Amino acid sequence: MPSKLSDADRDAALKRLNGWKSAKGGAAIEKAFTFADFSEAFGFMARAALVAEKMDHHPDWSNAWNTVKVSLSTHSAGGVTALDVKLAQAMDKIAGR
Amino acid sequence: MPSKLSDADRDAALKRLNGWKSAKGGAAIEKAFTFADFSEAFGFMARAALVAEKMDHHPDWSNAWNTVKVSLSTHSAGGVTALDVKLAQAMDKIAGR
Repeated sequence: MPSKLSDADRDAALKRLNGWKSAKGGAAIEKAFTFADFSEAFGFMARAALVAEKMDHHPDWSNAWNTVKVSLSTHSAGGVTALDVKLAQAMDKIAGR
Repeated sequence: MPSKLSDADRDAALKRLNGWKSAKGGAAIEKAFTFADFSEAFGFMARAALVAEKMDHHPDWSNAWNTVKVSLSTHSAGGVTALDVKLAQAMDKIAGR
């Protein structure tokens, strides 16, 4: 099981990500993605869901029309771990930015 | 464009649905679906997304692991319309209950 990142390691990881921010008092990282329309937004979700299922690590996320808000946390570790950073990187890659 | 249902019509529609409740002061209907796991939850979302896109009427929804919380409203009508009832029925059918 991955261990919770230190505050410094989490902040360093955030700097290497694109637009992700610390949330929930440092216990999660979050990002709001905006797409052209619902089709593009849900296409992103479908691709990200396949990655998440393969990692056995799943996002908390919401969708309204062309937006997808994502919150990543490793509940079993009580905070942000390398798994969250990996999933965030994969989502950025899928979103193409 | 569908028109907003009267309170009486909305409440009558809710009685014919399975587990949906009035929310946001009557401006939306909501339901929380629970599944066996993420795969089943996202499978539901994928099927519901296809219906929503075909209807050109989309849910506000969130997913965490095996749960999907759905809020339906017709923003252009300022409340709940027949479109929301139709999408709710389709979601109940997809969820198989």
